[in-house]
Amino acid sequence: MVGVDVGGTNTVFGIVDARGNIIATDKVKTAAYETAEEYADAVCAGIQKLIDANGGSEKVKGVGIGAPNGNYYNGTIEFAPNLRWKGVIPLAALFEERLHIPSVLTNDANAAAIGEMTYGAARGMKNFIMITLGTGVGSGIVINGQLVYGCDGFAGELGHVIVRENGRVCGCGRHGCLEAYCSATGVARTAREFLTSRAEPSLLRNIPSEEITSKDVYDAAIQGDKIACEIFDYTGTILGEALANFIAFSSPEAIILFGGLAHAGDLIFKPVQKAIDANILNIFKGKAKLLPSELKDSDAAVLGASALGWEIKEPVE
Amino acid sequence: MVGVDVGGTNTVFGIVDARGNIIATDKVKTAAYETAEEYADAVCAGIQKLIDANGGSEKVKGVGIGAPNGNYYNGTIEFAPNLRWKGVIPLAALFEERLHIPSVLTNDANAAAIGEMTYGAARGMKNFIMITLGTGVGSGIVINGQLVYGCDGFAGELGHVIVRENGRVCGCGRHGCLEAYCSATGVARTAREFLTSRAEPSLLRNIPSEEITSKDVYDAAIQGDKIACEIFDYTGTILGEALANFIAFSSPEAIILFGGLAHAGDLIFKPVQKAIDANILNIFKGKAKLLPSELKDSDAAVLGASALGWEIKEPVE
Repeated sequence: MVGVDVGGTNTVFGIVDARGNIIATDKVKTAAYETAEEYADAVCAGIQKLIDANGGSEKVKGVGIGAPNGNYYNGTIEFAPNLRWKGVIPLAALFEERLHIPSVLTNDANAAAIGEMTYGAARGMKNFIMITLGTGVGSGIVINGQLVYGCDGFAGELGHVIVRENGRVCGCGRHGCLEAYCSATGVARTAREFLTSRAEPSLLRNIPSEEITSKDVYDAAIQGDKIACEIFDYTGTILGEALANFIAFSSPEAIILFGGLAHAGDLIFKPVQKAIDANILNIFKGKAKLLPSELKDSDAAVLGASALGWEIKEPVE
Repeated sequence: MVGVDVGGTNTVFGIVDARGNIIATDKVKTAAYETAEEYADAVCAGIQKLIDANGGSEKVKGVGIGAPNGNYYNGTIEFAPNLRWKGVIPLAALFEERLHIPSVLTNDANAAAIGEMTYGAARGMKNFIMITLGTGVGSGIVINGQLVYGCDGFAGELGHVIVRENGRVCGCGRHGCLEAYCSATGVARTAREFLTSRAEPSLLRNIPSEEITSKDVYDAAIQGDKIACEIFDYTGTILGEALANFIAFSSPEAIILFGGLAHAGDLIFKPVQKAIDANILNIFKGKAKLLPSELKDSDAAVLGASALGWEIKEPVE
């Protein structure tokens, strides 16, 4: 199986065996290609090279692609703000034309959820929610063992559930989205707010305000910095409140946290769990486990995309 | 097929043909029976009488039961606050013992969703959300053509999504649930709040405050009463904001409103639609239709429960 992770900067692709071992990988610069066709030429040439060096096309059953704003139903990338090519890009079709291998595409958070279900913490689970905490907040929802795509292929945008009335402006143009608080950039915004509104000393005051990242907040928090710890509490509380609502929707067996912030361990997991417990409806108490992803960040995108390939049952329409 | 609607006051049951025509119905007083066994005796005797009068047991493929706090996986009613029998009641098993017909049970909102999918506004839809606006707010969620039950059988409690931080106390003991605002009792609470906090004249001031019902608010609103119309606007706005968030979860083809409040027509549909449009993420704009149920209230519960019977594929485990 081939997995392709389309990122704003790099596109990483690799060959993955049935046990989830990455056999070989390579990458190209996503932004270096003016048209989607030239980009597809370059990525597919790279993939073909890997395939030829590792047993040939007969052994490759499918290509799975994870991409921002990816639409599973059409195999298209639609209006992705962080990519150069505008409008609707039929990327799965462009790959199939070049590789003559069935190709499927979904958004990156869905790919991560499939990776987790196939190789990670959600193995054997039929109902779980994957929350990806990165530059943005994404989600992949699995119900009855199936990814939820909805009527249009775009279901599972939990980063854009509004959690605060008239709250922070979000990149989507609305106010109060979960993403505006619980993404890496949301954490940095919280840091700037807290440093302005409070007088206590903080290690974070040594960094120019506009340059503070979520990593800086983490570094300060593990040194016991009070404001940094409160930033994690604040972030985790908002996330936990939102998760308690999501549980009322699909009553999942587990919620899996993935991405940068999820590596903060207890700093984030404790306030999230506390807020879930404080806000959850009685009948759901203690049911959904809160788990960290078991996929390595560096591998997860390619693994997840490749796992999508296992979903190929018939030629993509 | 037999449909059974277990209500706090009455239990209505009926025989339904494959086209959704109710052939015969009868009812018993739910609260008149001290034990669940005696209750099952009475209901099943009534069902057997209908069956015998309408072609005999061979023609009946299954019994579908809609009940508050119903758990599809176990066929049990679990800790229903409005029923006499406490704890976990294995109602489907009690019915099977007596009728020797496969019996399945789910909560009333899920039964309504199945009824809508089989006979109503959701025919042919694979992804929709049914919202039941009654004394409480319930929901049935259909994804990929399947009811969402989650890991425990209780998924789809959208009436208990928290929509207002530190909001109204809800019957569930928490604060700010959708149900505390958008149920019939929620509308009556809003009326009492508005009448206290505003000075304008209103037809509702002719009714003792504690006796105002959502029906009174409706009657006043269709006569153009300003406060009554504002109560509907307020209710619809909160519901529409919540629905915009639900759409980000499962991107449904339609959201179907069912029950008392849904009969208020434009009074409720207009503010709901307006709030959806104002709060929805761009990619979902204009996709999910907002529809009234096409099932008659008086028939819906029995029809929905009977339609559940069509889901029986193998003996209930």
